[in-house]
Amino acid sequence: MTAPLAGYVILDLSHVLAGPYCTMTLADLGAKVIKVERPGLGDDTRAFPPFKDGKSAYFAALNHGKSSIALDLKEDADRTIFDELLSRADVLVENFRPGVLERLGYGWEALHAAFPELILAAVSGFGQTGPDAKRPAYDMVVQARGGVMSITGETGREPVRVGASIGDIVAGMFLSQGILAALVDRARGGGGRRVDVSMLDSQLAILEHAIALTTVTGKAPGPSGARHPLIAPFETFHASDGLFVIAAGNDTLFEKLCIALALPLDGDDRFASNPARVQNARLLKRLIEAVTIEHTRAHWIAKLTAAGVPTGAIQTIDQVLKDPQIQARNMVVDVLDRNGRPAFKAAGNPIKMSDVTDPTTRPPAPELDGNRGEILRWLRGG
Amino acid sequence: MTAPLAGYVILDLSHVLAGPYCTMTLADLGAKVIKVERPGLGDDTRAFPPFKDGKSAYFAALNHGKSSIALDLKEDADRTIFDELLSRADVLVENFRPGVLERLGYGWEALHAAFPELILAAVSGFGQTGPDAKRPAYDMVVQARGGVMSITGETGREPVRVGASIGDIVAGMFLSQGILAALVDRARGGGGRRVDVSMLDSQLAILEHAIALTTVTGKAPGPSGARHPLIAPFETFHASDGLFVIAAGNDTLFEKLCIALALPLDGDDRFASNPARVQNARLLKRLIEAVTIEHTRAHWIAKLTAAGVPTGAIQTIDQVLKDPQIQARNMVVDVLDRNGRPAFKAAGNPIKMSDVTDPTTRPPAPELDGNRGEILRWLRGG
Repeated sequence: MTAPLAGYVILDLSHVLAGPYCTMTLADLGAKVIKVERPGLGDDTRAFPPFKDGKSAYFAALNHGKSSIALDLKEDADRTIFDELLSRADVLVENFRPGVLERLGYGWEALHAAFPELILAAVSGFGQTGPDAKRPAYDMVVQARGGVMSITGETGREPVRVGASIGDIVAGMFLSQGILAALVDRARGGGGRRVDVSMLDSQLAILEHAIALTTVTGKAPGPSGARHPLIAPFETFHASDGLFVIAAGNDTLFEKLCIALALPLDGDDRFASNPARVQNARLLKRLIEAVTIEHTRAHWIAKLTAAGVPTGAIQTIDQVLKDPQIQARNMVVDVLDRNGRPAFKAAGNPIKMSDVTDPTTRPPAPELDGNRGEILRWLRGG
Repeated sequence: MTAPLAGYVILDLSHVLAGPYCTMTLADLGAKVIKVERPGLGDDTRAFPPFKDGKSAYFAALNHGKSSIALDLKEDADRTIFDELLSRADVLVENFRPGVLERLGYGWEALHAAFPELILAAVSGFGQTGPDAKRPAYDMVVQARGGVMSITGETGREPVRVGASIGDIVAGMFLSQGILAALVDRARGGGGRRVDVSMLDSQLAILEHAIALTTVTGKAPGPSGARHPLIAPFETFHASDGLFVIAAGNDTLFEKLCIALALPLDGDDRFASNPARVQNARLLKRLIEAVTIEHTRAHWIAKLTAAGVPTGAIQTIDQVLKDPQIQARNMVVDVLDRNGRPAFKAAGNPIKMSDVTDPTTRPPAPELDGNRGEILRWLRGG
């Protein structure tokens, strides 16, 4: 019944999204996360809307269960505390612009010499190396520069941003993987390592088919609206009361779909294989919609599910939060306040593991410097 | 100079995208990945376009450096080989529909009893539990049901799909993290564990601000086109030759932006704070564009970068692949053919680590059953 990272200590200098997302994942896996914030304002996201009782829901969602100490790394007394924390930490996470940590005297060489088992994990806009290493970035900048915006949106219209902040979040996830891989190796004597993840690199790493398409055909794909560019039918369709999706990814599923819709396309060369269906995707969509428009989404989702065809609703966030499958998987948890009462909702832990309890609540996010006394006692207590 | 997972053996029953993406990441971190495919056709994606010299670029991008053996897990002789592989493996990865592995006699209880150190990692559409556990899913289904489509696209128009297959890829990334966390714990005696990741759960886990917004305000956000719903200015703008992005995430950056654009908004209450700017985002966009439309994207990107304001181009995939920063980070690698010549391009490893070489090439993706002899010799050789 132990969480896999119980006992590991993560010292977290990061702020805003990519770094805090990474350390939230590690906290959900059982690590102790100590957030080191700048005195005064702390993490920028403490001031991000929306608020409830004066507290940021955004900050709470990303920082629940962490503890906080405010340190000015230019002050000697605070540096002494930070050094003590480093001597107890397994990992230091940071998302300053490259060069900032070095100027504070905590560059990789200095840290590795003083704490040879410490893992230093940095996430930045463009990475620790390369011509643009020191440029500032936000999610929007890497979604745009990294190409995902160019393949998201409707053909012939302006590109759109992916609604979730995947510029930050995917980078935070790769940072977690790098940290965990370094811990695996350290356990067999590999020592401390430096992990360097860039938000821009991370965008490239999730492009999957788009790189293959571009390099083989010589032509970059554009946006393809609500459909997959390489599979058909694999898009949204109108029912009598709105849109839903059908994803028939191979010939068997397409045959099942045609039977369920009573659509006589058997033997029609235009739809006989996936490449043919992709070529005739617009016509195929019209033929399918001529049938689906006759009944409701619920009717078709039930019917196609019974036929074994992947399908589903396009849910708004309020609907997702009430989805019975999401509920059954404990994927919406309560972040508690100081009095143990539910204060905010947050996403649960998507990594379910045997012999690990999957709690339905999370401890509060910390007040700025709210755990100073407790952290100092822990340091001095041995 | 050792990769962190060198020496670890991953047995990979998975196919298509989420599972193979996970094991590709582990291979890039140094693990030996043995792909166990069904005889005859093997992984579905061997038949996915685009092709070059009869080989799928899609398959190559996800399976480079893995070895392949074709086994029919209903045949005794092949089961014997599979059992031998299990006895040498650290991790078994699978993405069958829940229940399939049990019916083959390789359910978690049986595996854990026979191989107590083995980690079983499963990724599925909806997870191993819950009312919809056995439903089929594809990327499109979980992008729709999980809510990300409802916040992606233009206000007042139909929702669009995220151009990258984040329904699969994000789940594959959480599976990697679960595997690595289980390996960390196993190294200190934690034994084998079962990791259960669902594509739908994983979509919820990346929603970040959308859950906070919905639960605090009681209202689900809709799509917001090319702009962030909680920050302004943080969107696309027209220059004289096309669109580019500006992301001024706080007051200091907004001030720098106004100076660089010579835009006299100082002291204007409508733009004095981020909440005020969000409220007046449409007006603010018009005021900024009245200036940016006068010069090219290159002009503004250079000028704003010099001023320290996060900005950048919206690049198409061909532009991304030639981006000097992406090149400097070794983020586009050559997948070689059998003769050691470059055959395909693929994304590099976004997890850069000290004392680990970051090769500029990848070994070929395997032929179906192409490593049978070598794998059997390895099994029998000790």
